[in-house]
Amino acid sequence: MSPTTRARVAAALRAQRIETASWAYANSGTRFKVFAQEGVPRDPYEKIADAAVVHRFTGVAPSVALHIPWDRVGDYADLARHAKELGVALGAINANVFQDDDFKLGSVTNPDPAVRRKAVAHLLECVDVMDATGSRDLKLWFSDGINYPGQDDVRARQDRLAEALRETYGRLGGDQRMLLEYKLFEPAFYATDVPDWGTAYAHCLQLGPRAQVVIDTGHHAPGTNIEFIVAVLLRAGKLGGFDFNSRFYADDDLMVGAADPFQLFRIMHEIVLADALRPEAGVAFMLDQCHNIEPKIPAVIRSVMNVQEATAKALLVDADALAAAQQAGDVLAANAVLMDAYHTDVRPVLAELRADAGLDPDPVGAYARSGYFEKIRAERVGGRQAGWGA
Amino acid sequence: MSPTTRARVAAALRAQRIETASWAYANSGTRFKVFAQEGVPRDPYEKIADAAVVHRFTGVAPSVALHIPWDRVGDYADLARHAKELGVALGAINANVFQDDDFKLGSVTNPDPAVRRKAVAHLLECVDVMDATGSRDLKLWFSDGINYPGQDDVRARQDRLAEALRETYGRLGGDQRMLLEYKLFEPAFYATDVPDWGTAYAHCLQLGPRAQVVIDTGHHAPGTNIEFIVAVLLRAGKLGGFDFNSRFYADDDLMVGAADPFQLFRIMHEIVLADALRPEAGVAFMLDQCHNIEPKIPAVIRSVMNVQEATAKALLVDADALAAAQQAGDVLAANAVLMDAYHTDVRPVLAELRADAGLDPDPVGAYARSGYFEKIRAERVGGRQAGWGA
Amino acid sequence: MSPTTRARVAAALRAQRIETASWAYANSGTRFKVFAQEGVPRDPYEKIADAAVVHRFTGVAPSVALHIPWDRVGDYADLARHAKELGVALGAINANVFQDDDFKLGSVTNPDPAVRRKAVAHLLECVDVMDATGSRDLKLWFSDGINYPGQDDVRARQDRLAEALRETYGRLGGDQRMLLEYKLFEPAFYATDVPDWGTAYAHCLQLGPRAQVVIDTGHHAPGTNIEFIVAVLLRAGKLGGFDFNSRFYADDDLMVGAADPFQLFRIMHEIVLADALRPEAGVAFMLDQCHNIEPKIPAVIRSVMNVQEATAKALLVDADALAAAQQAGDVLAANAVLMDAYHTDVRPVLAELRADAGLDPDPVGAYARSGYFEKIRAERVGGRQAGWGA
Amino acid sequence: MSPTTRARVAAALRAQRIETASWAYANSGTRFKVFAQEGVPRDPYEKIADAAVVHRFTGVAPSVALHIPWDRVGDYADLARHAKELGVALGAINANVFQDDDFKLGSVTNPDPAVRRKAVAHLLECVDVMDATGSRDLKLWFSDGINYPGQDDVRARQDRLAEALRETYGRLGGDQRMLLEYKLFEPAFYATDVPDWGTAYAHCLQLGPRAQVVIDTGHHAPGTNIEFIVAVLLRAGKLGGFDFNSRFYADDDLMVGAADPFQLFRIMHEIVLADALRPEAGVAFMLDQCHNIEPKIPAVIRSVMNVQEATAKALLVDADALAAAQQAGDVLAANAVLMDAYHTDVRPVLAELRADAGLDPDPVGAYARSGYFEKIRAERVGGRQAGWGA
Repeated sequence: MSPTTRARVAAALRAQRIETASWAYANSGTRFKVFAQEGVPRDPYEKIADAAVVHRFTGVAPSVALHIPWDRVGDYADLARHAKELGVALGAINANVFQDDDFKLGSVTNPDPAVRRKAVAHLLECVDVMDATGSRDLKLWFSDGINYPGQDDVRARQDRLAEALRETYGRLGGDQRMLLEYKLFEPAFYATDVPDWGTAYAHCLQLGPRAQVVIDTGHHAPGTNIEFIVAVLLRAGKLGGFDFNSRFYADDDLMVGAADPFQLFRIMHEIVLADALRPEAGVAFMLDQCHNIEPKIPAVIRSVMNVQEATAKALLVDADALAAAQQAGDVLAANAVLMDAYHTDVRPVLAELRADAGLDPDPVGAYARSGYFEKIRAERVGGRQAGWGA
Repeated sequence: MSPTTRARVAAALRAQRIETASWAYANSGTRFKVFAQEGVPRDPYEKIADAAVVHRFTGVAPSVALHIPWDRVGDYADLARHAKELGVALGAINANVFQDDDFKLGSVTNPDPAVRRKAVAHLLECVDVMDATGSRDLKLWFSDGINYPGQDDVRARQDRLAEALRETYGRLGGDQRMLLEYKLFEPAFYATDVPDWGTAYAHCLQLGPRAQVVIDTGHHAPGTNIEFIVAVLLRAGKLGGFDFNSRFYADDDLMVGAADPFQLFRIMHEIVLADALRPEAGVAFMLDQCHNIEPKIPAVIRSVMNVQEATAKALLVDADALAAAQQAGDVLAANAVLMDAYHTDVRPVLAELRADAGLDPDPVGAYARSGYFEKIRAERVGGRQAGWGA
Repeated sequence: MSPTTRARVAAALRAQRIETASWAYANSGTRFKVFAQEGVPRDPYEKIADAAVVHRFTGVAPSVALHIPWDRVGDYADLARHAKELGVALGAINANVFQDDDFKLGSVTNPDPAVRRKAVAHLLECVDVMDATGSRDLKLWFSDGINYPGQDDVRARQDRLAEALRETYGRLGGDQRMLLEYKLFEPAFYATDVPDWGTAYAHCLQLGPRAQVVIDTGHHAPGTNIEFIVAVLLRAGKLGGFDFNSRFYADDDLMVGAADPFQLFRIMHEIVLADALRPEAGVAFMLDQCHNIEPKIPAVIRSVMNVQEATAKALLVDADALAAAQQAGDVLAANAVLMDAYHTDVRPVLAELRADAGLDPDPVGAYARSGYFEKIRAERVGGRQAGWGA
Repeated sequence: MSPTTRARVAAALRAQRIETASWAYANSGTRFKVFAQEGVPRDPYEKIADAAVVHRFTGVAPSVALHIPWDRVGDYADLARHAKELGVALGAINANVFQDDDFKLGSVTNPDPAVRRKAVAHLLECVDVMDATGSRDLKLWFSDGINYPGQDDVRARQDRLAEALRETYGRLGGDQRMLLEYKLFEPAFYATDVPDWGTAYAHCLQLGPRAQVVIDTGHHAPGTNIEFIVAVLLRAGKLGGFDFNSRFYADDDLMVGAADPFQLFRIMHEIVLADALRPEAGVAFMLDQCHNIEPKIPAVIRSVMNVQEATAKALLVDADALAAAQQAGDVLAANAVLMDAYHTDVRPVLAELRADAGLDPDPVGAYARSGYFEKIRAERVGGRQAGWGA
């Protein structure tokens, strides 16, 4: 790596920001079992404390996303101050309209207008929260869908969805954005109301420029080329961000980069190609993971590092050589340019970068040696551990 | 349909037995939410009462499978008496080694020998329960597996699995059987210890004749031809039974026949071809479903009827014409013989059969008119509704 | 079925039109082998003769799609006359830009501008053909894509695609339409330039009202809900038509309705719900199949019948009862309304309808008895059988 | 990397042998088009010459597999001499029973006994070839299967398959082996007669110790964990070898390591764990690829290098640290041990190893500079290029 390359790569990596999620620090599991862990936060304040620790050791995770109502507090301004004192900020607000008993057959797409009004009211409440926290992004994922053919009219549900989105979109102010997420299946099994990027894109197009699509890397059918979707949405100016995680089969929510690190690299390659790594490009890089069996804080640290490593490799791609080989129709040479970057061990560069920033070059080891886990394990006794229910 | 055909079909259908599952009457859901329903049983006695109602209206569901520890009671003989009084019997005993905190990293395949001993002790306890209930089948599904590459040694886990199965198999007496279930993924995300029929088959082969494979119709990779597996296991004398349900994407546990009724027909066609519908063929036809959003008892009734209808259609296949077309290499004619049976509306035959047996020809309607739901809704108030946790 | 229902269903079925494809009458196969069949056409005139036979026995297949250059002739007006004499018309024109050696790395998305110009010239030539044949629809399927990561720039390829479509769209006249098809994979293996409905939809939206999406039922990732796409495109006024076929795993191109007849019914249910069966709704119902091992003409006849049967069942859905159950949130009742229609045996209705129209109620049997196959087997000797290469 | 580690890794890599396939040097394509390339061999002698070039530049590909009848010659001993003169040996013999018109409805599983006899005769002929070439392995892949439900009796086909395998197995002599390959689908679309490892394993078990399973990495359903199958077959002593390639969706036959290099590493990790890299372990490492659009010889060189790199990484896994973390149930630490090896850039080690062996450290570059391609392009003019048809 030449000094010029290294300087370019380092500058880009220094500017990168990765947002962690409050719920990743809480208990999670499958329908079969939630295995509780020691030291898990009991409230949003403790979740933010854990997120701040991740930022302390990685230096690139300065914000934490909230999930409402799981992170509902009486005073969001106070929560924002708490975060600021710990060196982080509150990030995207994630609306949750899937855990109230009324939402059994859908929230914004429910056949019952009263339920739809309740769902929209929650979305609007989330914008209130954004006003209080200073969050830019309202992230919307709808579990809405149906389990059986015939259960409801899928076109009518699209109409209801459009109406709810329109009302919520109208409530956004300042530089607030709406990020619409799609998901193939789960918890709806037959038809999900926003199942793919095409549906999310079509709705965002209708809504206007502040509505953008968010890609959760675990939400696709098998065989889907995710980096293609990244490229297409970037070309259309409609990529709002990522919910990063990894999966082998369904929405496994494993640590990003754990299942297919080459795919993560290809995604970051499209980002770099489009010069969309810069914060001002408006692509939010967020983690959305479930650490069901592994300790949560070090798993998040590892995930942040995995995104950094994939980014570093993407930054190493020799763009000129790549373009030349592509233009020449030299399949093997073009592929080789990409693979050369991927096969490079970027960990030394990242270690150096951390050292330059006054961080421990080994964030996972530093966390383990910090005693933080021993502290929270001892302190967080009693009370009710946070989980997906709260 | 000729009178001879009708008589043959009717005789076969009269002999068919479908086992329902105690947990299908309890609450269930996804990792996102369990929506509680009204009138849900609070204990195994009430679950059995609901199962008895399904049998009362269908006439072909005379047994109910238990799940231990969800259905743990102090006196299994008493539970069996209760069932008998209501006109049903206790069926397969399903072992559960996935909800104890010790089983976070596996049960019988756990790297810790103490955990493995605990798991095996539970399996042996299940055989004790079988002795008390008179159940023939021990059904084993292991959620064991790993979420991350490297997390554990998959070969060593096979060794541990083999040892646990051997010890449990050795405990079986009389005509008791071990039915080993496989599943592609969930809750383990990277590697499941019994992920496919090949693994289950290989272990059963090692164990001996009382060990057989059970096919859950929702447990396969996309594109898997389930009826092929049925045929291969029947040929090998290793098909112990089915856990019926249906799915669109993963293990959705929807009502059998709801997602792909043609597939269910093809499965039953292989059963009929091998003359394995007869109870003495030893193939157990069980339901294993989750009625997350629909009322449970009528959903089970509908599921039983769906299996009956698929069976009736399979019985209508003109075996001689099919064999002749196959032997002649007449692709279209052979396919047409199969499709002709599938396209036949068999509901009149089944209605007549029910009437002959003194049942209402319309089980779903009869249940609705029976007032049973209104009764349990009123009576089952207070206490703790049964679910997957108990 | 009440007389009123029967009359309504019959009227709708009498109006239905299904277009067959010229290439379905020619030899086809896999990369492993093309098995030649007896009596296969040697030129477009003979293909059209076979299509006319399918129409003669079914009464609902009055047009046949062409594939250029496979069906290139010197005088398209003469070919149209030939068709008319046989009682059929020429239908959609399918452009083929995947078999020239220049297209190895893409046609309209090729990095080489000279190749792109050649590809666009072919698309424009196809509009010339439409002018001569009177065809309404230009059907575009692009095999364009890349096999290896890095091989080409996927965003740049989208730009090139957009430009080619724009130029071609501008050439359309009168009531001519452009139907853009998407396909997950094959023959490109890593990234296809139009892989999903979202990409096709986005381009059609840019182009204008004469550009619409065509759904090939075999072109989706596993687990994709096709009828959802149908509903969404109908809602957006962007569904141009179908390429019907069926598949178990990839783009198997089997007879429509052979793999999952319930899915075909669900698709037709969305069509009926949206009142899009009427020819004036502009949805073209086309077959796109490969009869690799089965005789072609009877396979096409069977396929036409399968579409008719699925349509008839969809027409039987009790729309009022369905809407009422949906509105009431009665999952089981709503599903039951749909399944009731699906389980009905509609073959007698269709047989009657054919008899009313002076057709043999059994088109497959009538074809077999007609002696047509014996005739073409004897006559079509010598020459070069048509296939995918011509 | 410590000197001890480096020495251990180097020794293992020096012993590794990768077999290339004669057909990879010939033209190939999809059902849509075979794009011919310049300089492609016209006969088996020229294919072997190309294979020898791959060995010359990589040093680890000393044998080449043949495909009969594609590589049928009058004098196999002469072909073996030709190979030996060029520094390579003839490897596995691949039987082909899928391109004769008689095999349209199957070869060894065909309902017609005469066709089955013909198919078995070809398998026996292949053993004759092995006797002449000195090949150890008979590799059997059957395209046999059916396209439509009902087309044939899948159980009867298993019986026919078993009989054909038994007869062929009985013909093997000396240290000859039968390697049975499985494949999910293609060219059969509904049911393939050997679709999965379980079926192949069950037949091999019946046959005896000389029958083993071969894993083609592109032949699985989506979501299948291939390294699990590797581990299970190694545990059972039934893994005969690999057909390496890579795929994104179906059997794409791309260069191994191109689609998911992490998966290839995990496969090689299981091999190393079981000490099965040693030639005497009897696991054949073969390439089975189609270079449809990229130049064939450098693509094979790259593929060989990709296997080497994955192997080198697998050899770097710290087995003691891994076992300790696994035994301790430390999920993150165990995963980190594996990932540490994977993220290491092993290309310098391999370059050094090549230099030590007197090879150019950059095989792809050395080939490009060698002038070999210019030579064959000039010389191989006229005649008929080899392809899948010959």
